[in-house]
Amino acid sequence: MNDWANSGVDLHLELTAGGGTRVAVEGALREAVRDGRLAAGTRLPATRVLAADLGVARNTVADAYAQLVAEGWLTARQGSGTRVAAGAGAAAQRAAAAVPERAGGERYAYDLRPGSPDLSAFPRAAWAAAARRALAAAPNEAFGYQDPRGRPELRGALAEYLARVRGVRTEPALMVVCTGFVQAAGLLGRALRAEHGARRIAVEALGYPDTRTILRLAGLETVSLPVDGDGARVEGLREARADAVLLTPAHQFPAGVPLSPTRRTAAVAWARAGGGVVIEDDYDGEFRYDRQPVGALQGLAPEHVVYAGTASKSLAPGLRLAWLALPPALLDAVVAQKRLADHVSPVIDQLTLAELIASGAYDRHVRRMRLHYRRRRDRLTAALAERAPGVRVSGIAAGLHAVLELPPGAPPVAYLVSRAAQRGLALQGLDALGGEEGAAGQALVVGYGTPPEHAFAGALEALCGLLSAIR
Amino acid sequence: MNDWANSGVDLHLELTAGGGTRVAVEGALREAVRDGRLAAGTRLPATRVLAADLGVARNTVADAYAQLVAEGWLTARQGSGTRVAAGAGAAAQRAAAAVPERAGGERYAYDLRPGSPDLSAFPRAAWAAAARRALAAAPNEAFGYQDPRGRPELRGALAEYLARVRGVRTEPALMVVCTGFVQAAGLLGRALRAEHGARRIAVEALGYPDTRTILRLAGLETVSLPVDGDGARVEGLREARADAVLLTPAHQFPAGVPLSPTRRTAAVAWARAGGGVVIEDDYDGEFRYDRQPVGALQGLAPEHVVYAGTASKSLAPGLRLAWLALPPALLDAVVAQKRLADHVSPVIDQLTLAELIASGAYDRHVRRMRLHYRRRRDRLTAALAERAPGVRVSGIAAGLHAVLELPPGAPPVAYLVSRAAQRGLALQGLDALGGEEGAAGQALVVGYGTPPEHAFAGALEALCGLLSAIR
Repeated sequence: MNDWANSGVDLHLELTAGGGTRVAVEGALREAVRDGRLAAGTRLPATRVLAADLGVARNTVADAYAQLVAEGWLTARQGSGTRVAAGAGAAAQRAAAAVPERAGGERYAYDLRPGSPDLSAFPRAAWAAAARRALAAAPNEAFGYQDPRGRPELRGALAEYLARVRGVRTEPALMVVCTGFVQAAGLLGRALRAEHGARRIAVEALGYPDTRTILRLAGLETVSLPVDGDGARVEGLREARADAVLLTPAHQFPAGVPLSPTRRTAAVAWARAGGGVVIEDDYDGEFRYDRQPVGALQGLAPEHVVYAGTASKSLAPGLRLAWLALPPALLDAVVAQKRLADHVSPVIDQLTLAELIASGAYDRHVRRMRLHYRRRRDRLTAALAERAPGVRVSGIAAGLHAVLELPPGAPPVAYLVSRAAQRGLALQGLDALGGEEGAAGQALVVGYGTPPEHAFAGALEALCGLLSAIR
Repeated sequence: MNDWANSGVDLHLELTAGGGTRVAVEGALREAVRDGRLAAGTRLPATRVLAADLGVARNTVADAYAQLVAEGWLTARQGSGTRVAAGAGAAAQRAAAAVPERAGGERYAYDLRPGSPDLSAFPRAAWAAAARRALAAAPNEAFGYQDPRGRPELRGALAEYLARVRGVRTEPALMVVCTGFVQAAGLLGRALRAEHGARRIAVEALGYPDTRTILRLAGLETVSLPVDGDGARVEGLREARADAVLLTPAHQFPAGVPLSPTRRTAAVAWARAGGGVVIEDDYDGEFRYDRQPVGALQGLAPEHVVYAGTASKSLAPGLRLAWLALPPALLDAVVAQKRLADHVSPVIDQLTLAELIASGAYDRHVRRMRLHYRRRRDRLTAALAERAPGVRVSGIAAGLHAVLELPPGAPPVAYLVSRAAQRGLALQGLDALGGEEGAAGQALVVGYGTPPEHAFAGALEALCGLLSAIR
């Protein structure tokens, strides 16, 4: 064990400016312990000695020692003086040398993977202005712990908006604001499992793999419903003995087809007959280009269908704003899960979106973006028709993505994706979203909404350059 | 089955203005189905007939029918005409009549329950200005799907701030931004259970019951550590065979005492010896009034201690902003849980807080609030000393709450709480936070930070009026 006071080690305590002398002494001692100059067990000099060394008052050193004892860097025992505590230094050093900041993923010049809107079109100025108005108008209680369902201002605005635009039949009391559909799926899964005895949920065979993982972690078994040109084959629900089903009726993701009228009716009839629950993921229902959008399935059977909407496509995924319109029988269970997950969604974004909707700015933004994405889809289909006529664009004119079916004899999708990556273009195959491998099912899922405006022409050119070689 | 075309029923379709004729026809038909005027199975008039009735083009009616068939309100079968779908109306009506908007809880004139800062002091203008600057400066990718740990701007600002103010030893790569401590506890519990084989976590016997529930739902068994004047009795950790422990070292909630230096050292030694994990809930570490705050326990052993901080007390709970500084060995498991919970925390509030910290406005706000709460605590203790001298204010001068120990012979806490409620004052007994019932342990936990500024004097007067009767 070293005895610093007697060993004559020169500690070079550097007292940096700012924060007062005691803080400087403390900081210098802490640093010396951290970097190993003061090893565990080392006895510190008497306060009188160090004070004289440093040219500071003795009480200053005594106070600094007391602070560091309180924090656990030093120990003080009667008769043994003040010593460096065991292990206070080395661990801090190892942790500081630990994990490097992760890279943000590979960098591509162009990104046509699906799932993201055009982030460069986020209405920053309108959002900031609405936030300022919302902050000025909010009651104090908006900033506190509160109703787990979320702000009444937003639930009110959404209930009116969704009735008008999507034909949703609900009311503010039946809505729960969530941090994105990812959270919504977890809350619903756990609510169905814990309080409604659900065991099994059917999901569309095509879709994000993460959603299944989340439902399984909620304790549900997942079974797949095949998807064809009429959407998910809901006729299989009874045989699958499912207690619930997750559908994308307006625009199947990723296949891009709507659920046919017959199947809409069948899904509702299934729910009514056996008490099943339909979860309607209406992720891009506001974007349809060839006709008026098909209204929400929920409007047909509000007691059996959970409507799930989101701002992730209409505004930005980074907002993490989604909402559920719930059947009355499910409300309490979902609210309980929300409270346990994070109590309530962050309020300022909620108040801001409510203000945007109430002022009409949200409608204007959606209209602008509808035109924006429609033009992109038209440019995509025109360019492909000209330069890669063997490639078929399937699905309806809607949303932010298109399925590009490759002709027989085309190279494997994995090869195309890898070749595109070499040219700086990020692509995704349908196989990554549950599509079956093999010549018949070969397809790309192209997110034409993803690139920022300045990069769309280049992305399209890169895509056509790649696919024009296919005959 | 009715046949409307032949029955001569006058349907009074009212075509409201706006949205075009087809939308008006659709809306009127939908409404008629909803309110039951068009019963299930009813056959609709031929398009030619209804068009003539309404004085609109036949195609308009045909398009409206097609839309409502697509949405499932109507069914169309060859040879059977267009009919109202089964069950489309009644269910919607029942759901709409369902759950009333919940009340915001009982209303009190004064609220001295603990857990909330003064919401009237939330810096609305500074927040709005910082949000505007942050929105203007953010890269596009900030609005997209991204690193589940949260914005690098905020993690960078927090790592620097926490090192400076709380002695936390971390780096941005080891931080995860969460939506409040509630979410953080869930993520940590599931990460410890799923990927580190933890089975049992020790928690302080005094604290929020919800935290235990969340840890138990994560699959962990919880065991209690008694709390005395030196904080949690961490000596019991080994015997409890705990894999982890959740502590409030700077200011035990609700007892109001700091963890003693000896116990700080013991907690770290326990973690080092057996690989246990300490979770440090530093919920109000910035508010200490009698001396410099004791630095974070995490600084002593960053490889064994998870530091958890929050903006819920320094700014507002409604922000739902908290952060973890993690040991490297726990990082991946917590990030995986965060991704499954909600992918990433909402970004605009993160960017705004980063901007507030970087600009110095956050430090200024905390200093202002420290003075604000210190003055309130001084007023509380002075008023009680004068008007209820038998009541002892225990715990250190810190945070937003104080424990008021009642003298022997005082009425039961439940009686006082109920009597206060009759007078419009909300109070909480220590028993609601795990305190033992009975004369010896009788105490109130008073949140002097809770009332808005204009109501503090009245709240204090109401409290003193109640307690002055106790001898």
